Amino acid sequence: MFFQSVCATTRSLLSQLAHQKPTIILGFSGGPDSLFLLHVLDVLKNEGIITLVAAHLDHQWRQESAAEALFCKKYCAQKNIECIVHTADQYAANVPHSTSKEATGRNLRRAFLTTIKNHYSAQAIALAHHRQDQFETFFVRIIRGASLSGLTCMKQYNPPYLRPLLTYNKSDILTYLEQHAIPFCLDPTNNHETFLRNRIRHSIIPACTNADARFEQKLESTIQQLQQEDTFLQQLTIKKLTELSHTNHAGRSVINLSGFQNTDPVLQRRMLLDLLITQQRHFLPSSATINEIIRFLMGIKGGQHCVTPWIIKKKSNIFWIE
Amino acid sequence: MFFQSVCATTRSLLSQLAHQKPTIILGFSGGPDSLFLLHVLDVLKNEGIITLVAAHLDHQWRQESAAEALFCKKYCAQKNIECIVHTADQYAANVPHSTSKEATGRNLRRAFLTTIKNHYSAQAIALAHHRQDQFETFFVRIIRGASLSGLTCMKQYNPPYLRPLLTYNKSDILTYLEQHAIPFCLDPTNNHETFLRNRIRHSIIPACTNADARFEQKLESTIQQLQQEDTFLQQLTIKKLTELSHTNHAGRSVINLSGFQNTDPVLQRRMLLDLLITQQRHFLPSSATINEIIRFLMGIKGGQHCVTPWIIKKKSNIFWIE
Repeated sequence: MFFQSVCATTRSLLSQLAHQKPTIILGFSGGPDSLFLLHVLDVLKNEGIITLVAAHLDHQWRQESAAEALFCKKYCAQKNIECIVHTADQYAANVPHSTSKEATGRNLRRAFLTTIKNHYSAQAIALAHHRQDQFETFFVRIIRGASLSGLTCMKQYNPPYLRPLLTYNKSDILTYLEQHAIPFCLDPTNNHETFLRNRIRHSIIPACTNADARFEQKLESTIQQLQQEDTFLQQLTIKKLTELSHTNHAGRSVINLSGFQNTDPVLQRRMLLDLLITQQRHFLPSSATINEIIRFLMGIKGGQHCVTPWIIKKKSNIFWIE
Repeated sequence: MFFQSVCATTRSLLSQLAHQKPTIILGFSGGPDSLFLLHVLDVLKNEGIITLVAAHLDHQWRQESAAEALFCKKYCAQKNIECIVHTADQYAANVPHSTSKEATGRNLRRAFLTTIKNHYSAQAIALAHHRQDQFETFFVRIIRGASLSGLTCMKQYNPPYLRPLLTYNKSDILTYLEQHAIPFCLDPTNNHETFLRNRIRHSIIPACTNADARFEQKLESTIQQLQQEDTFLQQLTIKKLTELSHTNHAGRSVINLSGFQNTDPVLQRRMLLDLLITQQRHFLPSSATINEIIRFLMGIKGGQHCVTPWIIKKKSNIFWIE
């Protein structure tokens, strides 16, 4: 029942891709979650509705990592699934390094998966995040500070990422693997209290569940409501941005300045975020950066303003970002 | 410095009331927070910028409650501040009783304070919620389930309520009382783990602070951002509601039905919430109630639909709520 339900959810998500037989890259760590998702996607591969490539990044941070890479390769070979293994050092030069080891690890995996996706001209990248990962993400965002968009957490389909397990419980995944005697790798750093996510998993989530047994169910519906409000605001933002944009005689896409100045600060922030991300995907601008740019745009002074890595240029009644 | 800062914040909040010398009702429990706020408001009373009335509700739930009421009376008499003490049984008949004792207590206090406010034709009710109360409220909302509006928590000025201490720390309040040897009552139920708020205070908040020392600061700025996005959506809602409303020949305020049906679900929910609250302040409609009404309004069938205590009537191209 559980396995069939996940397969049905995955088929339904795949139908959103508008591609006859999409190629799916699976982010495959060899841990229980991605191993379970490999089994689900293998069913869809055997049904002939997807082409499947498993992709494993060997971070080389731990002793066991070479053995895990070997495990992934052998497991896929048994199931006749193509498996790509790369080492993280190949991507280190092109990825921003964060003070948080988790963030750097995620950046490396993203760069790796994007490379593999491009190499195979794949339609999507499947990730094995489950329901409890979603709740942990919510608290990571709360503790690090977030806007509404941040609190909406992960989505089942956020191109190019597919998360078919997002509404399923970790406990059901583990039960399935146990019942079918499926082996998997266990990452010992999942228990290290040095990682914020582990402290959330071991202290905050149990405290919330003790406070009220319906906590997970309530938080799930809260996140859904936040996603609806955020999507609505995002639609307004895109509509406003389209209204205020035009291509100037030099072929550059520019924004009408007085139109921007007369827009509510909430949409101003969102419009800028959209523009900055379009220009440079590697860095997510901080709240302080956004505020600094808004002050420049609302001011009388023209010219240009530099907030590394962006340059905002203002001239007559238009502005643009380089 | 701290005391002066709170006085300045309070004066600035009072300036929003647009009343020469407003009468302020203070919700006065005799506990440290409201006792501190009494001292602040007493300064403003002596400056001649407010008229002050302290209002204490004796819940009669605990042994100590009569002694606390007496303490409040005597304390105010010493400072020459008018103090009203009522017992909760006077209000019990007119207040919805909740399964949660905390919620019932809050409803009783609200009914009491509103009565006193009306009696004195006062301009505002001052409450002594501080910064840590705000964080606890956030988690109460998370654990019980909330929409964006719920997560925005309490505001410094949300007519008729003023919360001058909302950005100040409990620890600074206690230090001030200690330094000035000001006595106060201590409610022993503040430590009972039967109350959700106490479980949050004793388990969840410390777990979050242990996870990251900047947690309180980050959550404060997250709440501010949510308030901005929520206010913007609320303004859109009121604008849309005004657009779609008119007074019909019978003198009733009605809403254009096809206009409502063509509005985004996010604004539909908010418009309905607004209409239902205007009609009946005692009950906050649940998410399920709102969804049920939307289904009725989006359907082809006319007539009326009853969701106690509201009746929604639909006729030709209009609807209204009774």
